Amino acid sequence: MALKRYQKKLNYSYTLGIFPTLELLTHQPDKTIRVLVSSRINSGLGIAKIKNLCQKNNLPFLTADRQLEKLSPKDNCYCLGVFKKYVPSLESQKNHLVLVNPRDAGNLGTICRTMLGFGWQNLALIKPAVDIFHPKVIRASMGAIFQMNFFYFSSFADYQKKFTHQFYPLMTNAQKKLKDVSLQKPFTLVFGNEGAGLEPKFSQIGTPLKISQTEKIDSLNLAIAVGITLYEVSS
Amino acid sequence: MALKRYQKKLNYSYTLGIFPTLELLTHQPDKTIRVLVSSRINSGLGIAKIKNLCQKNNLPFLTADRQLEKLSPKDNCYCLGVFKKYVPSLESQKNHLVLVNPRDAGNLGTICRTMLGFGWQNLALIKPAVDIFHPKVIRASMGAIFQMNFFYFSSFADYQKKFTHQFYPLMTNAQKKLKDVSLQKPFTLVFGNEGAGLEPKFSQIGTPLKISQTEKIDSLNLAIAVGITLYEVSS
Repeated sequence: MALKRYQKKLNYSYTLGIFPTLELLTHQPDKTIRVLVSSRINSGLGIAKIKNLCQKNNLPFLTADRQLEKLSPKDNCYCLGVFKKYVPSLESQKNHLVLVNPRDAGNLGTICRTMLGFGWQNLALIKPAVDIFHPKVIRASMGAIFQMNFFYFSSFADYQKKFTHQFYPLMTNAQKKLKDVSLQKPFTLVFGNEGAGLEPKFSQIGTPLKISQTEKIDSLNLAIAVGITLYEVSS
Repeated sequence: MALKRYQKKLNYSYTLGIFPTLELLTHQPDKTIRVLVSSRINSGLGIAKIKNLCQKNNLPFLTADRQLEKLSPKDNCYCLGVFKKYVPSLESQKNHLVLVNPRDAGNLGTICRTMLGFGWQNLALIKPAVDIFHPKVIRASMGAIFQMNFFYFSSFADYQKKFTHQFYPLMTNAQKKLKDVSLQKPFTLVFGNEGAGLEPKFSQIGTPLKISQTEKIDSLNLAIAVGITLYEVSS
């Protein structure tokens, strides 16, 4: 199998770095194809765990300097996991997070890590949206995506048809404050993208909520707004 | 004045993009030296405001394609503000945020924007620390830094000598939960860096606090942890 530099159309992707690779092997061993390491890698606890997990799951653990350089030219990456992409489905009885048209890989990864930190494991993405299997997303998530369910929908209407959740869109111009509302389970938190937030039509969907903030800024960063909301509704 | 590509040692820096440049001109007109725009820029509301503010403050507003390309080669930037660096001081009666050895420019910018969103304007940075005047920080802050006070200290001990605040270090292994503690003003929230968090010695300083989270992740992203903490203590 000749590995190519990551592209969305490939049916496999990569974890770059020890921590995300360890998460891949721990939570999705059946999806893992092989692990490549640099001849310069230090013998550490992380790499020993990875080697063990590869042996246990009969997965190739290979020294492959040239391939590493080819596959992650900028990252100076010493450890890379190759895995088959997969399509998890959302749990219909659990709370969901919906991201409408997210476009920043780092933000999406950070959001996944934060969701998992608050025990949220169901993420719906409304297209167009950044590719969750992009190595940048995986790296920013610190491998959190391997413990999550996620699914792409072609529109929010398409998502709405499939679930009977209570909807809570987060909008800076909402009437109600996040901290004053008691959310009815199972519910869905809906966030717009980094540039424009949610379109005005979302003010007619469910119960829009806002995070109180000063007028000195335009809006909070998307990942920060998600983090605050998950903290508030989970505590 | 021949402008150079940004380096820490220069006594001036740049805002890249319309929004941060507008924030610069609005909040620090005395520090602004000039504004450069591309001949390809669209005539929009933002650029009209910038032009007005330049006129009002007798500042040069120049079309300078080659300089823009030289000063922000990767960013494809259509509007750039040049400003003199300055050294604000912290307000001793206000609450402070301390970042110990922050190293990521994007995180620092996002943290500044979030602070301002919750009305926090005093930031102490413990060296070694990322340069707050780096254009990447300014861009990630959306220009929030121009409404903030910030100061670099050579060590946390050095900061401690100058202020009589109550200290609340945020640590994942703290005994007390953030949401259970009523903070005594003026207080200082202390955060470690992206990789390692705070050193163990901080568990002996003030009242360490933790954000409740699952064991599925190692820790929250620094900017997310700051956002949640500011939200909790401000609401």
